[in-house]
Amino acid sequence: MNPKEIWDHFFYPHRVAIIGASPSSEKMGYHTLKSLKGCGFKGEVFVVNPKYENILGIKSYPSLESIPGSIDLAIIVIPSKEVIEVLRECGKKGVKYVLVISAGFAESDLFEGEELQKNLKKVAEEEGIRIIGPNTFGFVNLDGHLNASFTPSFSLLKKGGVSLLSQSGGICHLIMAYAIRENIGLNKIIGLGNRVNTDFCDLLPYLVFDESTNSVALYIEGVEEPRRLLEAIRGAVKLKPIVVYKAGKSQKADEAAKSHTGSLAGPYRVYQGALKQYGAILAKDPLELISVAEALSLQNPLKGNRIAVITLVAGLGMVISDLLEENGFNLANFSKSTEKKLFDLMPPYTIRTNPVDLGYIANNKKLCGEVIKTVFEDKNVDGIILSYIYSWSEDFLELPVEAICEAISKTKKPSVMCLDTPPGIWEEEKKRLKEAGLPIFTRPDLAVRGLFGLWEYGRIRDRFRG
Amino acid sequence: MNPKEIWDHFFYPHRVAIIGASPSSEKMGYHTLKSLKGCGFKGEVFVVNPKYENILGIKSYPSLESIPGSIDLAIIVIPSKEVIEVLRECGKKGVKYVLVISAGFAESDLFEGEELQKNLKKVAEEEGIRIIGPNTFGFVNLDGHLNASFTPSFSLLKKGGVSLLSQSGGICHLIMAYAIRENIGLNKIIGLGNRVNTDFCDLLPYLVFDESTNSVALYIEGVEEPRRLLEAIRGAVKLKPIVVYKAGKSQKADEAAKSHTGSLAGPYRVYQGALKQYGAILAKDPLELISVAEALSLQNPLKGNRIAVITLVAGLGMVISDLLEENGFNLANFSKSTEKKLFDLMPPYTIRTNPVDLGYIANNKKLCGEVIKTVFEDKNVDGIILSYIYSWSEDFLELPVEAICEAISKTKKPSVMCLDTPPGIWEEEKKRLKEAGLPIFTRPDLAVRGLFGLWEYGRIRDRFRG
Repeated sequence: MNPKEIWDHFFYPHRVAIIGASPSSEKMGYHTLKSLKGCGFKGEVFVVNPKYENILGIKSYPSLESIPGSIDLAIIVIPSKEVIEVLRECGKKGVKYVLVISAGFAESDLFEGEELQKNLKKVAEEEGIRIIGPNTFGFVNLDGHLNASFTPSFSLLKKGGVSLLSQSGGICHLIMAYAIRENIGLNKIIGLGNRVNTDFCDLLPYLVFDESTNSVALYIEGVEEPRRLLEAIRGAVKLKPIVVYKAGKSQKADEAAKSHTGSLAGPYRVYQGALKQYGAILAKDPLELISVAEALSLQNPLKGNRIAVITLVAGLGMVISDLLEENGFNLANFSKSTEKKLFDLMPPYTIRTNPVDLGYIANNKKLCGEVIKTVFEDKNVDGIILSYIYSWSEDFLELPVEAICEAISKTKKPSVMCLDTPPGIWEEEKKRLKEAGLPIFTRPDLAVRGLFGLWEYGRIRDRFRG
Repeated sequence: MNPKEIWDHFFYPHRVAIIGASPSSEKMGYHTLKSLKGCGFKGEVFVVNPKYENILGIKSYPSLESIPGSIDLAIIVIPSKEVIEVLRECGKKGVKYVLVISAGFAESDLFEGEELQKNLKKVAEEEGIRIIGPNTFGFVNLDGHLNASFTPSFSLLKKGGVSLLSQSGGICHLIMAYAIRENIGLNKIIGLGNRVNTDFCDLLPYLVFDESTNSVALYIEGVEEPRRLLEAIRGAVKLKPIVVYKAGKSQKADEAAKSHTGSLAGPYRVYQGALKQYGAILAKDPLELISVAEALSLQNPLKGNRIAVITLVAGLGMVISDLLEENGFNLANFSKSTEKKLFDLMPPYTIRTNPVDLGYIANNKKLCGEVIKTVFEDKNVDGIILSYIYSWSEDFLELPVEAICEAISKTKKPSVMCLDTPPGIWEEEKKRLKEAGLPIFTRPDLAVRGLFGLWEYGRIRDRFRG
């Protein structure tokens, strides 16, 4: 079976049951049901809780068995001690795919937690059941309109090409808030939890097969079989870019990882070196992780490191030039014909070399567009970073959206944009640029790191394709 | 005269004239007038433009001279060639404080630009006029409800304790958008432009005297007399923290600086070393600059580097632990009594050592509050970083606002918070925490850098106070 045939059952189910759904907002089963109800899911949702006849307007069944017909995916949100019994019931009912949100297993300080997890694994094996979890917030598939998590807000995310596999649900929540604000498009977000029988190595090949995923972000604390993970990454990067943030640099973080998901984070440097060697692109923090993955989901890899900076303000051009140099890029030297064209197009007040300063022609949208197209077309330019700020008023300054879209579509050159505005400004313009494939970041450092990811993946692909 | 007596004329004027105000949105004078009209300014605004009788509902005077009575501050927004004549008129009228927004001086490629700037300087000297600019977006004083800039959106900023002196208006705009979103409170924002007779060294001592400024952020490209600037910084840091971002690390950025404001950025490393030696806190990018300044404007300096991490999610605790280690911090070892108290308060599922994980008691606001207060009071803890995420739903998870405020007010221990949420969530809670003096950042790296600024300033103050 190819990975798609197995894992699509989790991510694209038709009939989903929540065992432990609850009308009380004190319970995880309440929030999980809210997520499922509010995500636009096209399939059927069944709820199981013998204490109620009806929960949030949905008929409640006394047991899994009593639900008529088959169930594709069961979501378990009950106390840990009761999970194994329900897993047996899943087996009886023929449910092969189970998300266990419940906590209180190997991550807990209690001796029984370890014991329970061992039993969970054993029963799952006997019943032939795949489990995501336990001790996870769940997963989200924006492509399938499915929010199988205990946080309804994940449904606010825009659908896009980045999928995230994470050993921490908290990090997924941090990334959610950031991605909503920055309009970063996500596809599948999976909290692996304690990984009782589903690990990075199982889901990574699936995401490589998944047509709606363009790039994969991994948040790793530590795994038991690092070599298997590395091999999975090496296999994946030939087809899709993999960006990794490895936590656990500090000793204390290492200890926290053990308590958190029952695994040792392991020696940080060894991990970093090996991950790089096997083709992963390394991120320095979780927001960089998702930003770099976003750039890679929208743009082609860079063929070289000669970058043109086009900026509305000289100061930001300097900041970006500094960041580019720090990341090993060169500022492109424009060809003679570009130089001449820019000197003809632009007035003498302004900087007409790289970084190109649009400041004094800012309100001439047509002219700004001409400059942008000229720079994109220069044969000495491998990639472009556009940086705009919001200044004056909307009736003066307009984004040259058409010219940028045209330049991108004509040259296919990798490009990113750095842009931040007060709330409500240029929303439509930003949307159109994103649709044209331009990643937009509010932070200059993340815009440059996004570009770095494109360069890094170009080199990785060359290396692995030999 | 102390600096306050001179510079308050700029920042707290009563009667302001805009020369070059315009009804056309193609002109800077239009946007500048819009800024002045929309900022809640309590003084009188006069507009000068002989072509109109009335601009945006305000009577227009044919000349500065024709305005009855005195003018405290003149704002010039006309073509560069006409500026000198108007400056003479300012002299005649007795206007001693002039903001020149107009560009087309030494920053321009034209020979006449250099010439014009020399003349501007000469005439200003003859007339005894202080100029901010030319070639600047202007300045903003949120404490005085004055937006003397060509961008009305600056008035959307919240008033706070951070003042920003910048050699780039573009960077001020970048920071504006970020600060509006992150709710960072600013006080005075000044674009120095070409610094014809007002430089960092003139305004830095003013901001140290200014009661409404708690910390100062400097964006520096390069200055002609670095030693004077360094001495000004050394004088200032005894009283208030100074955070600096120095641009121009790359050679290209250096060249861009020359074209931008007519100055050489100078050797980056020499600057960095000297700035540090003279007591500045160095930032790595403009958003870090303003974030660190925000932390310093709200919190006391740290007395040591033993930090407690209190987190809603273990993963974020790990990320923060890693960042703390990178920044030279130690995770505090709790005292025996704190250890015991936490073991009594919290269930065994959860991490009860540092970093403390509130995950499994998240919905028990009272208990979370007890844990937070216990950690703040530990004598082995010098500072605290709180990190929350938004999870579940609002009817389940509440921020323990009262307990955090109580802990801060009782212990006065330096603390910062890392928190991001989907839009519209916990707005009131965040506001109350900020009012209690807790800096809140959405990015874990900037939260840690904010804490680093508090530690750095503690050491600087010890060093300089001897």
